[in-house]
Amino acid sequence: MTRTGAVFTTPWPLRINPHLDQARESALAWMRRFGLLDGEQAAEDFVDWRLAEVAAFFYPNASAEECCTAAQMMGWYFLPFDDQLDGEIGRHPSRVAAVCSALIGIVHGVSGPEAHDTPTVRAFADLWSRMVRGMSLPLRTRVAFNWTSYFSSQVTEAIDRTTGFAYRDLADYFSLRAATTCAFGQNDLGEKWGGTEVPPQLWHHPVLQRMRQLGADVVALRNDSMSLRHEDVTGGHNAIHLIQRSRGGTRQEALAEASCHAQEKVDELVELEERALSRLVRAVDQSQRAALRGYADIIHDWICGDYEWERITTRHDEHRVMPDWASGLLVGAGS
Amino acid sequence: MTRTGAVFTTPWPLRINPHLDQARESALAWMRRFGLLDGEQAAEDFVDWRLAEVAAFFYPNASAEECCTAAQMMGWYFLPFDDQLDGEIGRHPSRVAAVCSALIGIVHGVSGPEAHDTPTVRAFADLWSRMVRGMSLPLRTRVAFNWTSYFSSQVTEAIDRTTGFAYRDLADYFSLRAATTCAFGQNDLGEKWGGTEVPPQLWHHPVLQRMRQLGADVVALRNDSMSLRHEDVTGGHNAIHLIQRSRGGTRQEALAEASCHAQEKVDELVELEERALSRLVRAVDQSQRAALRGYADIIHDWICGDYEWERITTRHDEHRVMPDWASGLLVGAGS
Repeated sequence: MTRTGAVFTTPWPLRINPHLDQARESALAWMRRFGLLDGEQAAEDFVDWRLAEVAAFFYPNASAEECCTAAQMMGWYFLPFDDQLDGEIGRHPSRVAAVCSALIGIVHGVSGPEAHDTPTVRAFADLWSRMVRGMSLPLRTRVAFNWTSYFSSQVTEAIDRTTGFAYRDLADYFSLRAATTCAFGQNDLGEKWGGTEVPPQLWHHPVLQRMRQLGADVVALRNDSMSLRHEDVTGGHNAIHLIQRSRGGTRQEALAEASCHAQEKVDELVELEERALSRLVRAVDQSQRAALRGYADIIHDWICGDYEWERITTRHDEHRVMPDWASGLLVGAGS
Repeated sequence: MTRTGAVFTTPWPLRINPHLDQARESALAWMRRFGLLDGEQAAEDFVDWRLAEVAAFFYPNASAEECCTAAQMMGWYFLPFDDQLDGEIGRHPSRVAAVCSALIGIVHGVSGPEAHDTPTVRAFADLWSRMVRGMSLPLRTRVAFNWTSYFSSQVTEAIDRTTGFAYRDLADYFSLRAATTCAFGQNDLGEKWGGTEVPPQLWHHPVLQRMRQLGADVVALRNDSMSLRHEDVTGGHNAIHLIQRSRGGTRQEALAEASCHAQEKVDELVELEERALSRLVRAVDQSQRAALRGYADIIHDWICGDYEWERITTRHDEHRVMPDWASGLLVGAGS
């Protein structure tokens, strides 16, 4: 079944972590252990959705152990969490807020999984402790901030579902969308998993800020355009819906416009790196230059990895319906 | 001596902390103890620059102890730090990066003042420990993130001074400018000092994000327009310079345009609160509503407090020259 989404070209190669197979096995075992996979179909979904692949694409230089953690993270993110929030729970902001508040508590070391004792939260507590292991305190602060922004965006989306709020402006939408993909929080992990930590006084630089926002925007356009079969049914924010709503054209025209936007953003990123990033690299100490160039690689892996993953995953082939066994993963039976 | 800057009106009152006089005395004593004030002139500057007043305007409901800490923070921020970076040191990015890196280390609890043992850094270590005392871990993470963004912006400005980089676009400039005033980091403190902490899953909401950005923009326009006597001499980023450069008009025309921009932003904030914030307030649990309304008050105090402070401070009366005694405050004699 061929899906066509936003298309664009980049000058960067797709890179793949050599520990991919080990990471897939490790993630399947870990998800079973935490009750996040039930039966053969769920395990097949994990494999066919290519969740180990997306981890291997995003973090091509991660060690075997890190690549395993990354694949578990993708499994956690896509299987029990994201899809649950698209369902019935996602229409109850206070229930979403309770789950996200527990996850934010874990991210800040305020509380453990007992604050909201469900398989998803228990698994996240286990995962997070390994995600941040060995991180410097500044990176840990940053990753906590960016993952909090991600969890917060789930609450925002739940509120928007109940109020029917719809974005009118792509730029406004992209600001929330960077949070809903956890773009910056996943980019942060690239510095730890096979990359080089960007010194805190440079990570906030406007050039790096623009680079990661462009990366997030491009992935948003690609993802929104490829997940329409699901989101045409469930609703929720989607760039293609937004373009069609505001321009009134056909689906094909909206996809063509999304492709244009994505290509322009890739081109802007290429130029930004050639000029502004190069200027910045020259202005900082020798010892910090590798981290700046490495940051560009993280954004490239993010864009190229997502592009390929959207092509090969079966996740977006049709509208997904949450299987019965999964209904208790996020909220307890009694909540 | 009358200075005219960007002018605009708001529907919010100026509020003043009743502990102002005590805070002024406390800050003077604290700054003397850390060697940040030398002689009568420096103490007079502190009083005439109305640094205790700006603390009392920004944090009108802070306790006596918090208001004292806030006044010390303003003294630290304006006297040894900000002005030093406008001077000779500010033209050496690696020296600025070394200082800021030490301050960022303190913010994250990575290192103490010994990493860069100068009066400014020693004083900040003392100050920071009281600034974050009693904060929840999520708020502490957030304040660390936002103050890191502030210190990073000083490194960005130092690099821009050496490369001669000038902004062409006000929106791009405002993004950096929010960091250079430490707007969000100071707003964060308002939640602790007499306000209500915004739950982490709501602080990232796009409506609150827009509110604080508007607050930062308005203060940037007011501050840039009132500090021209200094910045016409020192250079550096300034919205009025940017407007004149891009439009080619007179100073008076640029000031009129800045006033327009500021008024539009105030009006947008008023409308945002009436509509979008009200919608959000209705969508969240009762227990979280006070924090959302309180956050609006923090932004109002920030805007109105700055407006009045820019009017009464003598800091911007003329181009400031760093006194000799202050030359060792930021970098050691040998560095």
